[in-house]
Amino acid sequence: MAELKIGLFGYGNVGQGVYDILTHTVPQFKVQKICIKHPEKSRNIDTSYFTTDALELINDPEIDVIVEAIDDAVAAFEILKLANAAGKKVVTANKKMVAEHYLDIKALYEKSGHAILYEAASCASIPIIRLLETYYGYDLIEYIEGIYNGTTNYILTKLFIGAGTYKEILAEAQTLGYAESDPSLDVNGSDAKYKLCINMAHAYGLYVKPSDIYTYGIETIEPIDIDFAKRSGQKIILNAKAVSNNGDVSCWVMPTFIDEKSLVYGVEDVENCIKLCPSYADEQFYVGKGAGSYPTGSAVVADIFAVERGYPYPKWKQGLQPEHLDDVQVPIYIRYQYEEQVDDLNFVRVEQKTELNYSKYMTGIVNLADLKRSKVNEDSHVFIATFSR
Amino acid sequence: MAELKIGLFGYGNVGQGVYDILTHTVPQFKVQKICIKHPEKSRNIDTSYFTTDALELINDPEIDVIVEAIDDAVAAFEILKLANAAGKKVVTANKKMVAEHYLDIKALYEKSGHAILYEAASCASIPIIRLLETYYGYDLIEYIEGIYNGTTNYILTKLFIGAGTYKEILAEAQTLGYAESDPSLDVNGSDAKYKLCINMAHAYGLYVKPSDIYTYGIETIEPIDIDFAKRSGQKIILNAKAVSNNGDVSCWVMPTFIDEKSLVYGVEDVENCIKLCPSYADEQFYVGKGAGSYPTGSAVVADIFAVERGYPYPKWKQGLQPEHLDDVQVPIYIRYQYEEQVDDLNFVRVEQKTELNYSKYMTGIVNLADLKRSKVNEDSHVFIATFSR
Repeated sequence: MAELKIGLFGYGNVGQGVYDILTHTVPQFKVQKICIKHPEKSRNIDTSYFTTDALELINDPEIDVIVEAIDDAVAAFEILKLANAAGKKVVTANKKMVAEHYLDIKALYEKSGHAILYEAASCASIPIIRLLETYYGYDLIEYIEGIYNGTTNYILTKLFIGAGTYKEILAEAQTLGYAESDPSLDVNGSDAKYKLCINMAHAYGLYVKPSDIYTYGIETIEPIDIDFAKRSGQKIILNAKAVSNNGDVSCWVMPTFIDEKSLVYGVEDVENCIKLCPSYADEQFYVGKGAGSYPTGSAVVADIFAVERGYPYPKWKQGLQPEHLDDVQVPIYIRYQYEEQVDDLNFVRVEQKTELNYSKYMTGIVNLADLKRSKVNEDSHVFIATFSR
Repeated sequence: MAELKIGLFGYGNVGQGVYDILTHTVPQFKVQKICIKHPEKSRNIDTSYFTTDALELINDPEIDVIVEAIDDAVAAFEILKLANAAGKKVVTANKKMVAEHYLDIKALYEKSGHAILYEAASCASIPIIRLLETYYGYDLIEYIEGIYNGTTNYILTKLFIGAGTYKEILAEAQTLGYAESDPSLDVNGSDAKYKLCINMAHAYGLYVKPSDIYTYGIETIEPIDIDFAKRSGQKIILNAKAVSNNGDVSCWVMPTFIDEKSLVYGVEDVENCIKLCPSYADEQFYVGKGAGSYPTGSAVVADIFAVERGYPYPKWKQGLQPEHLDDVQVPIYIRYQYEEQVDDLNFVRVEQKTELNYSKYMTGIVNLADLKRSKVNEDSHVFIATFSR
């Protein structure tokens, strides 16, 4: 196996995982230098590894691969561009950066021929991008969906077993390191949205800007919504979904009722899962850790192994040119207070309308485009979910 | 994408699936000729495709890839050798042949440089060999196990919901095409054993002859065994497992009690599943169709896409040289009639011993080597299972 020298950006949770795994398993891949932001912090390896000067890594002719394990999406993109221009291959774990700059990254690779890989950016340990790129490249993907965010799955799992209030469980998740001190990107669905954006681009050859994906989080969920699910033997997950409609693609991140017969029902705590349905291979179901030092680090290391070649982008090369379709009917559940809130959604069909303990509920069919532009999304006294049908 | 011309052996269930998928998705990959055994059968495509002369495909200089979709393991190996000698790449779906000749196939590839791929031979639509070869190559596999046979999973699923007797359900499975007219290779565990042999070789770089893998099927299961499982909220699956013990590897195919909390519990009917635990990535769980024309055909087509390169065999190249270890303790359940039957097993520890409705049960710990050489395996009035702990 050829030797590789690695320049690592970031030595937090993921960066340390990468360093550890390489040290223990692949001595041929050597971390040459690590760029950090806070030199004053104490570290568990020799200080000679560290620098605060990004260019010391970028301009080191011995370094073959730049690995990014930093949170700052803006800095991550700047480093990626510099590294690519300097002829380095890049492996990154920054999902926001990849989702925001997907087309730029694809263009940079195609122009330079220097691989840019990012398996860890989507569902950490689940090798979904690799499978879409090198295994299901020829097969039409009917849908790809799943639990893409461990923090919200932890919260929902605990809420369903009655382990506390939303606030208490969120605080506990923060104590356990499952949620950031600012958990908004997790609980408002943004984290899942970035991963959906990336997976969808590889599954369909379609880039949808993250801001253009309808995204509804779990921040406004109440015990009465959980009771509603339990009464019909269901659970609520935060589901990120892309689905083909005659070749065009609809997508959303939404709380979703699922039946106890579904395999997804058993995916608890911080696990992630993906249901992928290629037309010919038929439904595949993958479960794995969606976060954590080693599970995320292992995806980075798998990319380092594959870094000689960039993604083949089969779905883009096939020239299918699918469109992003919001004009599609989705079944929804809404808990609300005033009739104007649901009037705004232009229900295509109302299936059920009830009032219980001062709360109003409605289920039925709406057009995704109506749902997306509705001001009800901003209302903290409303909760919206869809059904997995 | 480069054009490829394909010579196909067999036009049954899998062969037709391959033909259909290629025709509908990848016109650059053209089936040039199909070798069949029974020219008298009516076919759904033009007769000019067919020949009964294997050499017509092997010696055709235009053909790049030979695809094998035939049942006969002896013939499949002969064709593979001829095709390899003629400079062709080979994609095969014959699990028995690959399991029996694993080392020969590896040597043929290494000597010739002509790829020999066989994703469809192990759990059909689940891309397990590809993942072990190109994604988890550097990571230590703690265990790999799962439901590798759809026929027995269908029978066990139906037995557990009380849908009939073993004989009735087996007959129904044959009617539905889920079981062969001679179902012995499925129900006695041989089919799962071949797949275990292949997966284990790629996971550990260790080849264990199929005949050397302890294999116990489901042929002697009785309603009282199912009741025993149900009383503790469990199910019985036919589990194929390889597990690392400080680097050496133990393996078996055995009926296995599993808890309803396990994700495996929800894998019903003809679905296959694999639990793979790489040390760093942590437990991965994959579910997909383990048989069928398109799910199996899709794995063959994925191999055709990847046929420019053979397996990298990372676990073999690392020179780990693990040993096959039968000297390991396993927890078992045995239903029996006479004390001599259990005496023969040299129980290391008996945990429970009861008698109910004229049947005797014992649970406890035995050494796998004792279990393997015991004559109790041949006794049709005995049922043996292990526990997933």
